[in-house]
Amino acid sequence: MTKNVKIIIEYDGTDFVGWQRQPNGRSVQGEIEDALRQIFSEKINVVGSGRTDSGVHARGQAANFFIPSSADVNDLLRSLNGLIFDDIVIHDVQVVEEKFSARYSAKEREYRYFITQMQTALERRYCWHVGYQLDIAKMNDAASKLIGSHDFQTFCRAEAATEHYLSSVFDARWDVESTGKLFFTIRANRFLHGMVRLIVGTLVDVGRGFTSVEEFEKIFHSHDVRNTGQSAPAHGLFLERVVY
Amino acid sequence: MTKNVKIIIEYDGTDFVGWQRQPNGRSVQGEIEDALRQIFSEKINVVGSGRTDSGVHARGQAANFFIPSSADVNDLLRSLNGLIFDDIVIHDVQVVEEKFSARYSAKEREYRYFITQMQTALERRYCWHVGYQLDIAKMNDAASKLIGSHDFQTFCRAEAATEHYLSSVFDARWDVESTGKLFFTIRANRFLHGMVRLIVGTLVDVGRGFTSVEEFEKIFHSHDVRNTGQSAPAHGLFLERVVY
Repeated sequence: MTKNVKIIIEYDGTDFVGWQRQPNGRSVQGEIEDALRQIFSEKINVVGSGRTDSGVHARGQAANFFIPSSADVNDLLRSLNGLIFDDIVIHDVQVVEEKFSARYSAKEREYRYFITQMQTALERRYCWHVGYQLDIAKMNDAASKLIGSHDFQTFCRAEAATEHYLSSVFDARWDVESTGKLFFTIRANRFLHGMVRLIVGTLVDVGRGFTSVEEFEKIFHSHDVRNTGQSAPAHGLFLERVVY
Repeated sequence: MTKNVKIIIEYDGTDFVGWQRQPNGRSVQGEIEDALRQIFSEKINVVGSGRTDSGVHARGQAANFFIPSSADVNDLLRSLNGLIFDDIVIHDVQVVEEKFSARYSAKEREYRYFITQMQTALERRYCWHVGYQLDIAKMNDAASKLIGSHDFQTFCRAEAATEHYLSSVFDARWDVESTGKLFFTIRANRFLHGMVRLIVGTLVDVGRGFTSVEEFEKIFHSHDVRNTGQSAPAHGLFLERVVY
């Protein structure tokens, strides 16, 4: 018999090859699985809500895994944080029903992307430095076109294998922090591979005047990733939370 | 003939041995001097407003140096940032009068110290994780005793050589950010070696109930560093700005 355990994870993606375990390099999944093996002396498979690419951060990634039903869950948070290096922090551990899957039970995911217009030493690992002026009103106008249920093939990496390209976007908007830092919030039921970074890169082209809002709409409905702007760099992207 | 140039510097102290050039390891002063040598093909001595220890960050360190009067200052900001690795960013370059000294002309310096009560992966390099409950009202009560002109020998590292221990503290208070992060702001005309970190360590002892406000006052006036709490770790400390 086993218990199904759900955890919430914060990580600094800088030094990881990404969420998913890979033959070479540190992965978030791999680090957590290695810690679980030390605690339970057996191989435990950790299922994340989704993969994040190398360099992408998370404030609220969710995952689940099964542990022996005799195991004590109370000390698991502390044990995991004690074993894992400090660029991963587990913030919550709870027993959930057996059929819960961090991947398939997720109803909504929220990502944020941070842009600084002034070069910064202290935040260089956590936002994209865009030196030119950006028209936030135009970027928000274009972003609003994404809201609703659409085919997002345009914003999916060409090599990504997926059954379909449909996604329902609940929110997509730019805000400005009091420090002047910009951030893009996007909430959707499903994200395709590379979707947020391709959207951000294309919206930045709107903001700097390279692409009009009308052109952005045409690109969006072209179903062809070759029409997008550059993919925004990984280090500005944060998986904020997963809603179940 | 030379021109006196003042610069404002932001740096992530994590990977530095500190501000001051040392035989081994990267220093902020050393990196800037190396870049200036590349630009002007001569050794240029950079004077900072003061030293910061290894691991201490700066948002607004100030420094000055002399360049040939024939040199063009307009491109210096860009040239310096182009040559220096991205954990140092120069934010301002201006020609100042010959007698200006970043060290001796400074009237006031402001430091901030950040504490998080929740373990964090993303901010682990920029704040001290203090797991136990802290009584902010008591910490502020104790901090208020520091304001004014006093002898701060208690909060000076024993090995530091200095003519006298007098400092005028204009402000010393704790605030709480909306995220729950605490920060201590202290402004003074002069800081002794290790002063902010010794004060913060001792105030945290007040906050957790190890030391009463009355005991804090006694420690402050004991002129003996052996009575203080632990020195708070370097990575929570930021030199915010220098006023001239």
